[in-house]
Amino acid sequence: MQFTLNSPLDMHLHLRDGDMLKNIAKFSAKEFAGALIMPNLMPPVTDINSLLSYKERILEVVSGENFTPYMSLFFKSDYTADFLQKAKPYIAAIKLYPSGVTTNSESGIERIDIKKLSPIFEAMSELCIPLCVHGETNGFVMDREREFCAVYEQLAKAFPNLIIIMEHITTCASAEILKRYENLYATITLHHLLITLDDVAGGLLNPHLFCKPIAKRHEDKEALQELALNANKKVMFGSDSAPHLVDKKERCGCAAGIFSAPIILSALAELFEKHNKLTNLQAFVSNNARDIYKLTPIEKNIILEKKEWIVPAKLHDVVPMFAGQSLKWKVKP
Amino acid sequence: MQFTLNSPLDMHLHLRDGDMLKNIAKFSAKEFAGALIMPNLMPPVTDINSLLSYKERILEVVSGENFTPYMSLFFKSDYTADFLQKAKPYIAAIKLYPSGVTTNSESGIERIDIKKLSPIFEAMSELCIPLCVHGETNGFVMDREREFCAVYEQLAKAFPNLIIIMEHITTCASAEILKRYENLYATITLHHLLITLDDVAGGLLNPHLFCKPIAKRHEDKEALQELALNANKKVMFGSDSAPHLVDKKERCGCAAGIFSAPIILSALAELFEKHNKLTNLQAFVSNNARDIYKLTPIEKNIILEKKEWIVPAKLHDVVPMFAGQSLKWKVKP
Repeated sequence: MQFTLNSPLDMHLHLRDGDMLKNIAKFSAKEFAGALIMPNLMPPVTDINSLLSYKERILEVVSGENFTPYMSLFFKSDYTADFLQKAKPYIAAIKLYPSGVTTNSESGIERIDIKKLSPIFEAMSELCIPLCVHGETNGFVMDREREFCAVYEQLAKAFPNLIIIMEHITTCASAEILKRYENLYATITLHHLLITLDDVAGGLLNPHLFCKPIAKRHEDKEALQELALNANKKVMFGSDSAPHLVDKKERCGCAAGIFSAPIILSALAELFEKHNKLTNLQAFVSNNARDIYKLTPIEKNIILEKKEWIVPAKLHDVVPMFAGQSLKWKVKP
Repeated sequence: MQFTLNSPLDMHLHLRDGDMLKNIAKFSAKEFAGALIMPNLMPPVTDINSLLSYKERILEVVSGENFTPYMSLFFKSDYTADFLQKAKPYIAAIKLYPSGVTTNSESGIERIDIKKLSPIFEAMSELCIPLCVHGETNGFVMDREREFCAVYEQLAKAFPNLIIIMEHITTCASAEILKRYENLYATITLHHLLITLDDVAGGLLNPHLFCKPIAKRHEDKEALQELALNANKKVMFGSDSAPHLVDKKERCGCAAGIFSAPIILSALAELFEKHNKLTNLQAFVSNNARDIYKLTPIEKNIILEKKEWIVPAKLHDVVPMFAGQSLKWKVKP
């Protein structure tokens, strides 16, 4: 038994840089036609030159694979309309990080002052540049995303022509407001479709499932599944796959991030099949993103076959999600 | 500046066994007049012989210190009234663990069937043996204690003469029902007075603050502080200090438990002083427990002086709570 996905897209991916980039980019490049590359390097990608040279480094590493890195800039409050116009041909989106909410977000935005930032959002609206947002406040860890919903609502109302993408949503609250505003869209990760806080800290502590936003409650997971499994037109797949070296994960002060890239399509196929929704997977991992981002990805067919395999314990000193566990579907090499 | 605590008591302490017991018992024995020793060894302490031999091992290790280990049995559903009567002279309490809710609780109670267990609870009521309970269900990690409150209420109503001690409470919900039933009492740990889930998983992941019940929300911490700082007569201090070797903590699959023993009185003094409640500390760490358990501890004065010190990074391969941080009060040697 097998089926084919046409040009799957990962609309939220951390490829890192240097050795890590060299080691891990292939896992995405093999199985996806393209991915939106996150700009939170150190220092972040905030100008066209560094964006283009990062893109070049990525292309070098994935050469031989049919894979498009869609680039994004790290939102800065001093971007001008002129700069955005110049950047437009090179970017698929701009990613806004509130300061300090996740890995390498220190130079993010202290306070989202809609009035002050209005010229940027207006220019982005006119240029049709989507605004991707890491939507968390600095509040209590289980409330951060819910608290941020007010900001999403303000943005959606103030800039009705701005395409706003709520990245890696994790809560019922986000699922709700997504439906309420025409210009709100969302990405959903693999892990938030499959785990809750119980998997992170309910039994023994599992650093490999520690991520930001942190996995929430069962009812939240169900709300996300409802959107993804039915391929709601406003959601698309974005893995937020974010590798860290094993000794950065298995120690005191473990960094947030789950390395899901090596198992994404297998695990998604298993989830969608379990719910009798396999026919919706194409829309969730590709078509919806094409519509929202107005993308025409390269032609690339990925065949999944029903064939059990065991996820390796480690890949280049990074522990992948579900390491050592078995999955039912496998990407045909 | 200094003050004296008279015979402080730790009414919930894990001393472990073997080398760990030898290494860590002194931290409690030096600063406390006595402690209620938890029976969740492997195998658990369920008969008088193993209880007495465990007590002997403890006394050997703390010899030279003026310290009483108050022993507890691990609740089993086949205890008889006859057995309890025989055990009574040797024990201060019986500790009930629902099966699987924490470290070494596998042989705990599957389902608390009040009718079936009624003869045991009746016998304990008559013999004035307090029932200490780890009050968590197997539900979602943030809801487990709140869900268990219904069981506490059933027990409190069905056995009005049974002294029921809600161990290491962590929520507003427990603080509420504690006030509602005359025969409900509670212990509160140091760490639940000081941390929330934010400290465990809000920034980087901190395995050394991972414990069961997991630390909850800010409003929960405040409810516990309100009880402890005002030395509510129904609450007493119980550290739940629970050491694990550093490589059991700093790895994937880290065990639950915080090793607070080396810093307890220092950190409590700092907290109570900060809230201008130093005069209530004596009741919280000793007098309330004497009243609830009807204990007359050995005479032992502990002097605390205002003197900054740095908590060691490691003590016998165990990382103590607040390792490397400075505390304002120090126990006078």
